[in-house]
Amino acid sequence: MKILMINGPNLNLLGTRETALYGRTSLPEIEARTQKRARELGIELEAFQSNHEGEIIEKIHAAAISQSCGILINPGGYTHTSVAIRDALLAVDIPFVEVHISNVAAREPFRQKNLFSDIALGTISGLGPYGYILGIEALHELLRTKNR
Amino acid sequence: MKILMINGPNLNLLGTRETALYGRTSLPEIEARTQKRARELGIELEAFQSNHEGEIIEKIHAAAISQSCGILINPGGYTHTSVAIRDALLAVDIPFVEVHISNVAAREPFRQKNLFSDIALGTISGLGPYGYILGIEALHELLRTKNR
Amino acid sequence: MKILMINGPNLNLLGTRETALYGRTSLPEIEARTQKRARELGIELEAFQSNHEGEIIEKIHAAAISQSCGILINPGGYTHTSVAIRDALLAVDIPFVEVHISNVAAREPFRQKNLFSDIALGTISGLGPYGYILGIEALHELLRTKNR
Amino acid sequence: MKILMINGPNLNLLGTRETALYGRTSLPEIEARTQKRARELGIELEAFQSNHEGEIIEKIHAAAISQSCGILINPGGYTHTSVAIRDALLAVDIPFVEVHISNVAAREPFRQKNLFSDIALGTISGLGPYGYILGIEALHELLRTKNR
Amino acid sequence: MKILMINGPNLNLLGTRETALYGRTSLPEIEARTQKRARELGIELEAFQSNHEGEIIEKIHAAAISQSCGILINPGGYTHTSVAIRDALLAVDIPFVEVHISNVAAREPFRQKNLFSDIALGTISGLGPYGYILGIEALHELLRTKNR
Amino acid sequence: MKILMINGPNLNLLGTRETALYGRTSLPEIEARTQKRARELGIELEAFQSNHEGEIIEKIHAAAISQSCGILINPGGYTHTSVAIRDALLAVDIPFVEVHISNVAAREPFRQKNLFSDIALGTISGLGPYGYILGIEALHELLRTKNR
Amino acid sequence: MKILMINGPNLNLLGTRETALYGRTSLPEIEARTQKRARELGIELEAFQSNHEGEIIEKIHAAAISQSCGILINPGGYTHTSVAIRDALLAVDIPFVEVHISNVAAREPFRQKNLFSDIALGTISGLGPYGYILGIEALHELLRTKNR
Amino acid sequence: MKILMINGPNLNLLGTRETALYGRTSLPEIEARTQKRARELGIELEAFQSNHEGEIIEKIHAAAISQSCGILINPGGYTHTSVAIRDALLAVDIPFVEVHISNVAAREPFRQKNLFSDIALGTISGLGPYGYILGIEALHELLRTKNR
Amino acid sequence: MKILMINGPNLNLLGTRETALYGRTSLPEIEARTQKRARELGIELEAFQSNHEGEIIEKIHAAAISQSCGILINPGGYTHTSVAIRDALLAVDIPFVEVHISNVAAREPFRQKNLFSDIALGTISGLGPYGYILGIEALHELLRTKNR
Amino acid sequence: MKILMINGPNLNLLGTRETALYGRTSLPEIEARTQKRARELGIELEAFQSNHEGEIIEKIHAAAISQSCGILINPGGYTHTSVAIRDALLAVDIPFVEVHISNVAAREPFRQKNLFSDIALGTISGLGPYGYILGIEALHELLRTKNR
Amino acid sequence: MKILMINGPNLNLLGTRETALYGRTSLPEIEARTQKRARELGIELEAFQSNHEGEIIEKIHAAAISQSCGILINPGGYTHTSVAIRDALLAVDIPFVEVHISNVAAREPFRQKNLFSDIALGTISGLGPYGYILGIEALHELLRTKNR
Amino acid sequence: MKILMINGPNLNLLGTRETALYGRTSLPEIEARTQKRARELGIELEAFQSNHEGEIIEKIHAAAISQSCGILINPGGYTHTSVAIRDALLAVDIPFVEVHISNVAAREPFRQKNLFSDIALGTISGLGPYGYILGIEALHELLRTKNR
Repeated sequence: MKILMINGPNLNLLGTRETALYGRTSLPEIEARTQKRARELGIELEAFQSNHEGEIIEKIHAAAISQSCGILINPGGYTHTSVAIRDALLAVDIPFVEVHISNVAAREPFRQKNLFSDIALGTISGLGPYGYILGIEALHELLRTKNR
Repeated sequence: MKILMINGPNLNLLGTRETALYGRTSLPEIEARTQKRARELGIELEAFQSNHEGEIIEKIHAAAISQSCGILINPGGYTHTSVAIRDALLAVDIPFVEVHISNVAAREPFRQKNLFSDIALGTISGLGPYGYILGIEALHELLRTKNR
Repeated sequence: MKILMINGPNLNLLGTRETALYGRTSLPEIEARTQKRARELGIELEAFQSNHEGEIIEKIHAAAISQSCGILINPGGYTHTSVAIRDALLAVDIPFVEVHISNVAAREPFRQKNLFSDIALGTISGLGPYGYILGIEALHELLRTKNR
Repeated sequence: MKILMINGPNLNLLGTRETALYGRTSLPEIEARTQKRARELGIELEAFQSNHEGEIIEKIHAAAISQSCGILINPGGYTHTSVAIRDALLAVDIPFVEVHISNVAAREPFRQKNLFSDIALGTISGLGPYGYILGIEALHELLRTKNR
Repeated sequence: MKILMINGPNLNLLGTRETALYGRTSLPEIEARTQKRARELGIELEAFQSNHEGEIIEKIHAAAISQSCGILINPGGYTHTSVAIRDALLAVDIPFVEVHISNVAAREPFRQKNLFSDIALGTISGLGPYGYILGIEALHELLRTKNR
Repeated sequence: MKILMINGPNLNLLGTRETALYGRTSLPEIEARTQKRARELGIELEAFQSNHEGEIIEKIHAAAISQSCGILINPGGYTHTSVAIRDALLAVDIPFVEVHISNVAAREPFRQKNLFSDIALGTISGLGPYGYILGIEALHELLRTKNR
Repeated sequence: MKILMINGPNLNLLGTRETALYGRTSLPEIEARTQKRARELGIELEAFQSNHEGEIIEKIHAAAISQSCGILINPGGYTHTSVAIRDALLAVDIPFVEVHISNVAAREPFRQKNLFSDIALGTISGLGPYGYILGIEALHELLRTKNR
Repeated sequence: MKILMINGPNLNLLGTRETALYGRTSLPEIEARTQKRARELGIELEAFQSNHEGEIIEKIHAAAISQSCGILINPGGYTHTSVAIRDALLAVDIPFVEVHISNVAAREPFRQKNLFSDIALGTISGLGPYGYILGIEALHELLRTKNR
Repeated sequence: MKILMINGPNLNLLGTRETALYGRTSLPEIEARTQKRARELGIELEAFQSNHEGEIIEKIHAAAISQSCGILINPGGYTHTSVAIRDALLAVDIPFVEVHISNVAAREPFRQKNLFSDIALGTISGLGPYGYILGIEALHELLRTKNR
Repeated sequence: MKILMINGPNLNLLGTRETALYGRTSLPEIEARTQKRARELGIELEAFQSNHEGEIIEKIHAAAISQSCGILINPGGYTHTSVAIRDALLAVDIPFVEVHISNVAAREPFRQKNLFSDIALGTISGLGPYGYILGIEALHELLRTKNR
Repeated sequence: MKILMINGPNLNLLGTRETALYGRTSLPEIEARTQKRARELGIELEAFQSNHEGEIIEKIHAAAISQSCGILINPGGYTHTSVAIRDALLAVDIPFVEVHISNVAAREPFRQKNLFSDIALGTISGLGPYGYILGIEALHELLRTKNR
Repeated sequence: MKILMINGPNLNLLGTRETALYGRTSLPEIEARTQKRARELGIELEAFQSNHEGEIIEKIHAAAISQSCGILINPGGYTHTSVAIRDALLAVDIPFVEVHISNVAAREPFRQKNLFSDIALGTISGLGPYGYILGIEALHELLRTKNR
């Protein structure tokens, strides 16, 4: 079971950025912890971060070629603005789970517009870095039961 | 660690109700599975379901007296309409995680108004009955790390 | 052919309440007249009134168990606010007709939001207590022709 | 008791048009059935269909001259757009009942704007061709009790 | 100086229609009075009324051919709905004054949308049948001073 | 002069609940103080609290039977959501004053929708527990001068 | 017949101000022409201009004392913002006609909000300085026929 | 392959009407050019223009009887207002292409509401009279490939 | 304890103005009654009325210099439009209570926008002239308990 | 005549992506067919696809330097979000035609916001891959007739 | 080069008013500093402050007579409400720069409506008292380069 | 004092692009002038332009590493669409001033949505290329006084 984990813009700064909101865990730490849980579940996890909308689109295109069976994505600021990344996910037709570290529902009005949730399997929001672990578990469970 | 799990209106019909949307797992099965995971994590879990807004409010009031340290709640249809249950959660000041079985973001416009997410620790939505397991894990992790 | 007639909050006051709007016929009179018409059509009619959202939800759940084949409902003030009763009707999947005594379209803006009409077989509004008679006839006709 | 039944644009195609939505009964059949019920109730019914807004307006004007005491109208697509037909109904001051074959509340957003319901005696919607029968009965009942 | 006076739908019923709102003066009386004032000002006035949107459009087209130099129009219910009549007035490029007998600003919300005022020379509203006299005077004054 | 004082959901927690917003006075203290002032004014005051929408509706119905001549109500969270309680107040036609402890105008957007103020005699908001005293005085004054 | 003519802010600059929009006639010229027409109609006209909201309010109050029987008002920029002048007109209960020199309907969106039209006898807009003449004639006609 | 070309209100004035917007080509010229291209493609083209909503509706009804396999329509001002013509196109279920001579997207806000595009095969807008040629080609291509 | 009572535009007409809405008590009577109650409570009350926004602003500025410890304000029509008076109250940072004689919540939509309530201690609305007495009592109570 | 054809994000997946919506023709095929038609019309066509907003902007800048006289653009998901690409087209001031393969008007609400149509020569939407052929023909025709 | 600096309501309290928002510099200090910079640039600066909308309007009228060539204005609370001051600036047609001390974009929703920015040369916001210095420099630069 | 100046998409075309709106000064000229002023103020200025959202994000990240103490940014078209650049500025927590060459408030509605102003120190808009000079001066002044 191959899964691609995508982190969007500014998530490379995790651990230093607005720590009251995003916590003090860095992206490499999150990736390491999520890798560990993935391995326990027998998942081959590829971690990817980019600040470029176009690169994220092309990584999603590549996921179709490399036959990923699930995507775990935190689109960061693109959550609210990128029709193009949404279209990429629809184009490759790979089931995905959306994760947000902070509780987006408690933030600015412009963050209440979300271009991903309605086409995701599901969304995990506000549960901190632990949300990625939950996301991997959810993808594992949902893909596993679907295949039965 | 005592946790209260609340299921709102119509969730007693799970497994028979709109199965394309909510799946075929019954509420007792969900409660049993979540109990099992709770026990593994050393959590004392109380499960409660009601179709009455007033009863849910009073159960939340009681949780303050019985010193629950967390609430896992799927407010069902009250998610979009009950200021009174929201006020109860604010009144007792117990951290809670919100769970939805179906992907609410992909449903009717009136379901896009949510009175709970912005005051929750976080929200898990669209991941089926497995969302309760994830919710228990999330509460366990967040309450545990907060207490350190 | 078993049919459940549900009247929501404040309809127990019919005949004394805002008579310019709702007329001078009491709820027992309406129930008696509707019973009479039901009997003529070979329908077993159960009449139920409650001011409690939760009780209405549970009556609808019970209708599934007692194998009602149709519901005639005037949700009263819950017409505009109860996602939970709507969900109950969807959950039991029993066809229903919505009745309003007064002409809701001619009243306050907040009454223009309706959570039932779009999932009803149809709606009868503004035709006074006679609307219940029409509703029973409609359910009889539509259920009868569906069964052919 | 003289009643005018008006059917608006495209209703001449009933029985062939979008049958999933409008059913397979033709307009002449509906007119015949409604005539039959009218005769039973002692009503002199005139049936009229037009695709022209201006013709409908003038038919309504004529109803005042011919002393119709009630109108049964399905304004079709003009339901949502014709202030002029609304004004005609107000001008002649003849009580009317509005009928819709399909469940308008379950259709496109632009159909949720209705220029007739708030000035009608009442509205019957979504109950198929049988709605005309109910409409005639309602007019008969309401005009009869008013005259007492 | 040739001027065309157009009255839209239902205005043929003036004097009998909603007299609290529109007064007791009939359309022929209004036309006669306005003719009288027109003659005093040296204006050749043609009066036209129609309930048909298409006929009004074509009358406006004809005004261009007969070289009317001004139009006085009360579009009635089409004020709020007819882009096509608006387009006709723009197409023939004849200056026009808009008249309303009742005070439209004090009426229903849907009457606050107006498709004519912004392209009119000006608007006279709420001043009863006398508004037509004022309208003719206004057209006379404005066309006269423009030609200087 | 008989007056009914109704407190809605969560107000039983006053004194412990969100004290920065609602203060440290408990509901029994408020009831005692208001009783005291009522007695001084010669008012027979009945105090009632419920978290159940249906119970509040039925208490209002009962007030009509027991011939209360005024109601003092703090609908709590139902202020913004309960058409049914509003309808109950209209149904019994007893004049009422609305009280809020906190300054609702300074709170969340969803609290700006109020289903009671427009049908109340008047509203007292933001003046803490003392608002109930003012409310009793206001009812006393207004009912007294009305009876003259 | 005593009539008060009020011109609001910036109208003292007429003839020099945005002449493409407001024309080249100065306020004294307009006042002189309107006076002339008033005298012809047997009207005692008082002309008043102010840039101060409070002064206009107090002039309207004074009109009640001096027993003006009509007001002709161009509220200028206060048209769109002054609830207080609106309230003054309601307070003195003197019928008034609203005049605008430019075609307000063809201007900025914020000018589409009007606090006067719905309580005016009527409105004359877009017909240049001649609108004041029409306004005086309208007041003369309407007050005259009302007194009959 | 039989195709019906419908031009709505005011399009009979093409070539003289608002030429900056619509160009200097007359409707007969456009019809001739489109006929020529239709003949080249083996299409039997019937051209129809009307200013009457009802006539356009009935022409569409007739197209079903005469077995047209496609419609090319420029609904003119009815684009933004006619639910009834939309319903006619749905009723006959003939695929159609929508053409606009001017660039509607660059015009007034009320023209941004379109009742046809979402049920059309496609839309060609802003490309002048040449849009009709493109429309015929598009219908030819799409009907041809569908029939394969 | 020094308190300033401010009455805004048109309130000088109380007792004669729209008496169905505002009652028959004049402003001097209200001021006398409120003075009486103030004296009983040991409050030095200054009463001020103005129709000028600028004067009200400057009176509020002066209240800071004369060390008023509370303001009782009925901003009249400026309630809905004056950001500048709101800013003055924020600038001097003196606690204030807002009073309205009529029930604003039951009036026009433009009166539902309020620029004062959210920064007031609290609001008393709809309770007639007696609202000023309640307002003085509220200020006395709240300032007294704050000083403890 | 040099023309640049730009395809935006995800259009490289054409033929495999959501084929029910976009069809089974690949981008190279579309480019080949459009090249063929371009050559027939004597047009030098450059085809460009990118998933990167910045690259599309810079390609448009380059088109000004290479003296393209027209652009054919399908902005894909950037249609609804990219002010920056819009600005680039305005900056270089090269006339362009907008093409969409699917019928955008029949899709999600967020796709109804379009940042290109109002500044395009025109738009072709919903006509499949054939839309590019029509677009090239339209550019050829419009640029040719403009140059006369 | 003569420039008028206008400060609107409450700005006379600068230095004492909401200092967290507006800082501790008084208006006389700001005027002195701005005068100093103006003199360095060869500008004759007149400083004016008023809390009265009407006085500000008349000062702007006077600026036309005294031939000011630029205005630096901080309209304070009138920024969001005064169409009349906006109209005065348009009437005299003197270029102006708008200054705000606090960052208006970060404040209340009702402050996001601005009646001045779109007709200003430009706006400087959020840069504290230093914004006036920048404003003078901007007016100097823009008027100087315009005169070349 | 190190400051980073960022210019967003299409600003590389300054001087040639829409010169009526943006003027005839090129970006290198603006950069040179701003450098000159920066040097005078003892500021080390780095100038950067990019059309790529991702590159701008990463430049802002780099500014944190190179210890820039202020940013001067003209986000161009990204002003209205880029949550991701906003997030980058929040993430690095470097104070910034926003500059716009044209008067954004006088432009299209979609440009009225701004994702930067509320988190900027302040904004300078509409003052042409000179706005950059003012921006450098503002940053210098505000950072200098903050450090005291």
